[in-house]
Amino acid sequence: MSEPRTITVELGERSYPIVIGSGLLGGDFDLGAYLAGGDCLVVTNDTIAPLYLDTLEANLFGKSIETLTLPDGEAFKTLETMSGVLDKLVSSGANRDTTLVALGGGVIGDITGFAAACYMRGVAFIQVPTTLLAQVDSSVGGKTGVNHALGKNLIGAFHQPRVVLIDTRTLDTLPDRELSAGLAEVIKAGAIADAEFFEWLEDNIGALVARDPEALAHAVQRSCEIKAEVVSEDEREAGRRAILNFGHTFGHAIEHCQGYGEWLHGEAVAAGMVMAAGLSGIDQADIDRLQALLKAANLPVAPPAVGSQAMLDAMGMDKKVLDKQLRFVVLDKLGHATVTSDYDRSVLDAVLEAADG
Amino acid sequence: MSEPRTITVELGERSYPIVIGSGLLGGDFDLGAYLAGGDCLVVTNDTIAPLYLDTLEANLFGKSIETLTLPDGEAFKTLETMSGVLDKLVSSGANRDTTLVALGGGVIGDITGFAAACYMRGVAFIQVPTTLLAQVDSSVGGKTGVNHALGKNLIGAFHQPRVVLIDTRTLDTLPDRELSAGLAEVIKAGAIADAEFFEWLEDNIGALVARDPEALAHAVQRSCEIKAEVVSEDEREAGRRAILNFGHTFGHAIEHCQGYGEWLHGEAVAAGMVMAAGLSGIDQADIDRLQALLKAANLPVAPPAVGSQAMLDAMGMDKKVLDKQLRFVVLDKLGHATVTSDYDRSVLDAVLEAADG
Repeated sequence: MSEPRTITVELGERSYPIVIGSGLLGGDFDLGAYLAGGDCLVVTNDTIAPLYLDTLEANLFGKSIETLTLPDGEAFKTLETMSGVLDKLVSSGANRDTTLVALGGGVIGDITGFAAACYMRGVAFIQVPTTLLAQVDSSVGGKTGVNHALGKNLIGAFHQPRVVLIDTRTLDTLPDRELSAGLAEVIKAGAIADAEFFEWLEDNIGALVARDPEALAHAVQRSCEIKAEVVSEDEREAGRRAILNFGHTFGHAIEHCQGYGEWLHGEAVAAGMVMAAGLSGIDQADIDRLQALLKAANLPVAPPAVGSQAMLDAMGMDKKVLDKQLRFVVLDKLGHATVTSDYDRSVLDAVLEAADG
Repeated sequence: MSEPRTITVELGERSYPIVIGSGLLGGDFDLGAYLAGGDCLVVTNDTIAPLYLDTLEANLFGKSIETLTLPDGEAFKTLETMSGVLDKLVSSGANRDTTLVALGGGVIGDITGFAAACYMRGVAFIQVPTTLLAQVDSSVGGKTGVNHALGKNLIGAFHQPRVVLIDTRTLDTLPDRELSAGLAEVIKAGAIADAEFFEWLEDNIGALVARDPEALAHAVQRSCEIKAEVVSEDEREAGRRAILNFGHTFGHAIEHCQGYGEWLHGEAVAAGMVMAAGLSGIDQADIDRLQALLKAANLPVAPPAVGSQAMLDAMGMDKKVLDKQLRFVVLDKLGHATVTSDYDRSVLDAVLEAADG
């Protein structure tokens, strides 16, 4: 295996490292050194457990390990499931020094992090993301939470992990569709903050889809760096951090209207980015470049036929609505995003028409 | 009404005022000025709503007010009840600028504060405590949460209010037993941090039990000041804040063994303080003074007959257990507390014998 790369998310006393490498799981990386005490609860799902649970335990040598295996899927990202994690902690006598370890994708990370935030008003937490989406997105920034029947991620907490361990070899077992969904957030990182990285992605999208290890490692690293930079400046999303939601206002509305679990989150965000780019008033040539890159990543570039009015209604429940005035993340140009409530309503309506099928 | 007194809890950017006065509810105090935006959800219970909900609304003049009335009682301090508060927020379309207002005792404050901590990963929160216990204890310090079937306050968050509004006139409708339970925490404040205040309480306990307004106002103010000083030094309970748990390790064990709802929290803490004082190795004369003051406040000074082994088992689940080593808050002398794991096991056993009936 090559030498792991380490990025530090700078958040004062809550700073933490992201360690990226191939073969870290089951290797000699001492994850146990990051535990708050002598014991931990590993939370995973029934897809990931048979693949990586045993190898992870090698990284926790000498520690007392409890495990909880949840059913796989966004449908289980609920307060009830989180409550089950708390039950497991209580029944195993976990104290304030325990550490929760999330082994899986974004759903596992979000549920586990939220449980860690709430158990005894906050215990330690480690992320071991095994999907590309979780590696580049949900493992960075400390957002945790669960869905409400009426809205996504409405319940949660900000709770930073002590370390994030990214073994890019776990992507070998990721289904094609989920790899593409992760690439949506990689492309987003370039679109909102780094035109040079966006160009690199245009040049290397074929290698990424073909799972070239070096290309994937660079994409993960640069995406994490961009998100880490933005989060460091604005941990609680008072301002600039909101640009990370590029494509998400439309994307969440798509997921809400379809019912969670139809499209993957990254797929909804891909279509949402095209809609947000349409609202941005940038050159059509730049919108075309974004669409071409998303298509090359095997991602949708238009919403499903859920209806424009249904999407508008869904956006009324979005977290970025302040005083009932819709705000959107738009692009000034490829590589630079901003948040605005100053947009042309007729352009918004035109963009939403794509959802009328 | 006399001029309100204001204490500031110093927590940097999370600092907030506690405003204490008689007749503040329904008076000209502009609580609406403390809202994050134009709307709020007032959470209260079916005992308090008929007494004070209308008068509170006068303090929120011009704001959009939703209300949620919960059943009264510690038995409802659960994740399920908190989830119902979140449901109400979602169904009323509350956004990030909404403010939760807790009108009631400690249970209402803890549930409402936790819901505010979790809704959209944190919205604004105001406390209007209507019991003496909540006024002097649970409204100060930002601890929020709910009980688990297997342990008290195991699920929660630290979430500071924007303001705490204490109208001492609400104590006029408080049952005698609850007034006494509140006095347990007042006495605790003196015992752990202020010998002079403890003496003042010995001199004025008759006036307090008789609900003399001036005596109550001073007791609330000084108790809040003491707690605010301790919390300011140690918001996340890494160290000194733990002294506020004097009597609580034993008290929680009493509540756990009895089943929540038998004794009031303050009653369990009163008996717990006598037990903790017994473990402290201070002069018997000081233990006698503590017992005499608690008795004068109509509080129990010994645990119910739940069994010493049952209490020990219950304490194994207490949040203050680190690496399975029991730690206790003890008194160096009346007016000064410390946390220790260095105590004589035979003395602990002797103290626990009181629970064998």
